[in-house]
Amino acid sequence: MSRKPHPAVAETRVAVRRLFGGRDADVCVAVSGGADSLALAAAARHECDRVEGLVVDHGLQAGSAEVAARAAEQLDGLGFDAVRVLTVVVDGPGGPEAAARRARHTALRSAAGARLILLGHTRDDQAETVLLGLGRGSGPRSIAGMRPLDPPWARPLLGVARATTRRACAALGLEPWDDPHNTDPRFTRVRLRGEVLPLLEDVLQGGVAAALARTAAQLQDDLAALDELAEGLEPDPATLATVPAALRRRALRRWLAGCGVSGLTDAHLRSVEELVTRWRGQGGVALPGGLVARRAHGRLTCGRPET
Amino acid sequence: MSRKPHPAVAETRVAVRRLFGGRDADVCVAVSGGADSLALAAAARHECDRVEGLVVDHGLQAGSAEVAARAAEQLDGLGFDAVRVLTVVVDGPGGPEAAARRARHTALRSAAGARLILLGHTRDDQAETVLLGLGRGSGPRSIAGMRPLDPPWARPLLGVARATTRRACAALGLEPWDDPHNTDPRFTRVRLRGEVLPLLEDVLQGGVAAALARTAAQLQDDLAALDELAEGLEPDPATLATVPAALRRRALRRWLAGCGVSGLTDAHLRSVEELVTRWRGQGGVALPGGLVARRAHGRLTCGRPET
Repeated sequence: MSRKPHPAVAETRVAVRRLFGGRDADVCVAVSGGADSLALAAAARHECDRVEGLVVDHGLQAGSAEVAARAAEQLDGLGFDAVRVLTVVVDGPGGPEAAARRARHTALRSAAGARLILLGHTRDDQAETVLLGLGRGSGPRSIAGMRPLDPPWARPLLGVARATTRRACAALGLEPWDDPHNTDPRFTRVRLRGEVLPLLEDVLQGGVAAALARTAAQLQDDLAALDELAEGLEPDPATLATVPAALRRRALRRWLAGCGVSGLTDAHLRSVEELVTRWRGQGGVALPGGLVARRAHGRLTCGRPET
Repeated sequence: MSRKPHPAVAETRVAVRRLFGGRDADVCVAVSGGADSLALAAAARHECDRVEGLVVDHGLQAGSAEVAARAAEQLDGLGFDAVRVLTVVVDGPGGPEAAARRARHTALRSAAGARLILLGHTRDDQAETVLLGLGRGSGPRSIAGMRPLDPPWARPLLGVARATTRRACAALGLEPWDDPHNTDPRFTRVRLRGEVLPLLEDVLQGGVAAALARTAAQLQDDLAALDELAEGLEPDPATLATVPAALRRRALRRWLAGCGVSGLTDAHLRSVEELVTRWRGQGGVALPGGLVARRAHGRLTCGRPET
């Protein structure tokens, strides 16, 4: 390697350095063999004190063991301190994508122990995640995308273009594997990548992936602030009446979750909120799981109905 | 009219009622003659005490005076208390869309005085606005869409589908005008409406416009809360160091605006933030307009550099 790294290599290294900011780092890198995770692996090797490579073999495609072995070999070549291939069994509820993710996450967590696990998600993955979230419509959290640091997960490349990871691999002589699933239009994410984002780029005249990633990053900050501020709020009607609605709803949602309410809808939450904001002596609010929220003697309670 | 209104008519009336919540209402309705603003006009006539119709003639298309006269005639037929056609001259800087909006807003504000001006933006307009904001990438504010109540503007139909306003017009015997601009693909908004949203609906399996509008509404609440909380913060480094980043940045941005800084970039803001969060005796931060922010004796200042 020459003294001065290729710009694409330098960009991935800076991205890793920014996330870890000079700490002693003993990390794992999850590697599929694709350009994003290989480029990340190379950058992590350069920036971290100790790196272990974890290659998951889902056993879902013919030749997956060879793909995993080839990825592991390249990590060895990069000088990784250790490399493990984790063979997982994909089953259980939900679609095949969800089951594969679950199996992968469990295997990675168990292999990593207390260490961070670096994931190769790029700015383009972030843009696709934001668009997926737009379709769900379950509020700002659903369009805030993935977090750069969400232990044990760390995603240093969320601001780096996928094309940059390809260029970095080429510059380093790494040979990425192209997952055929990445072009299979049966997957929603593949259609977002191949059809929706290019059309949006055309209609909005470019820069959409970067714009989505930038907006997602700011949303992360906003949501973290609101969650932190709501955490200090007790479910006391007098206090809750004086705070902004976004904090009141977060505080009520957290309190109800702590009371064992699951599957709370927006309509439920608004009815409980009215016990605070539109109090006119109304009765209890029926919630999922047979629980009832009520207001009595200036206090909120949540429990089984009195019989 | 029959006793029980058509469901589409009922939906527009409920939307107007929700926004005004039983207040004495003396309002203006801005009417283009399109289905959205005609349906809104009919609902407002039903729900408000006094309604004046304001029809803007931009004079940009052949026959615009006839379109305006036909809209005014239909408002008369609905029993409006007053109807005015406002003829405006579209010129000045920016593209023709921006210039038309500026001219329209000025004429409407001046005609309405202290009254609210109801606008016919629907859930589909809101979805298009959110997508436009995604392309700008200037943070959560840019994807929070339009506000239901932003005096003098009021948008009761932000949760109502455009198709519902067409059905309401048909049920009421109103004849909406179809603006040819609404299908001209030279306009970004038209391509979002005609190409991007239908593709997103297909890829994400429906409900996208509703999901976008729902997320935008929650974002409005979140942003209002953060703005309110940041308003109470003084530009004091000791205080700002202890609050969440999203509040600190808002407080600094507001303070700098108050000091006369305009055109602040994200990079500027981060440098000023480091005077609080990464203080190591660094020098002043150069800002647009020849201003400099510095920290000295535990205080932040912003002004002309000392010469």
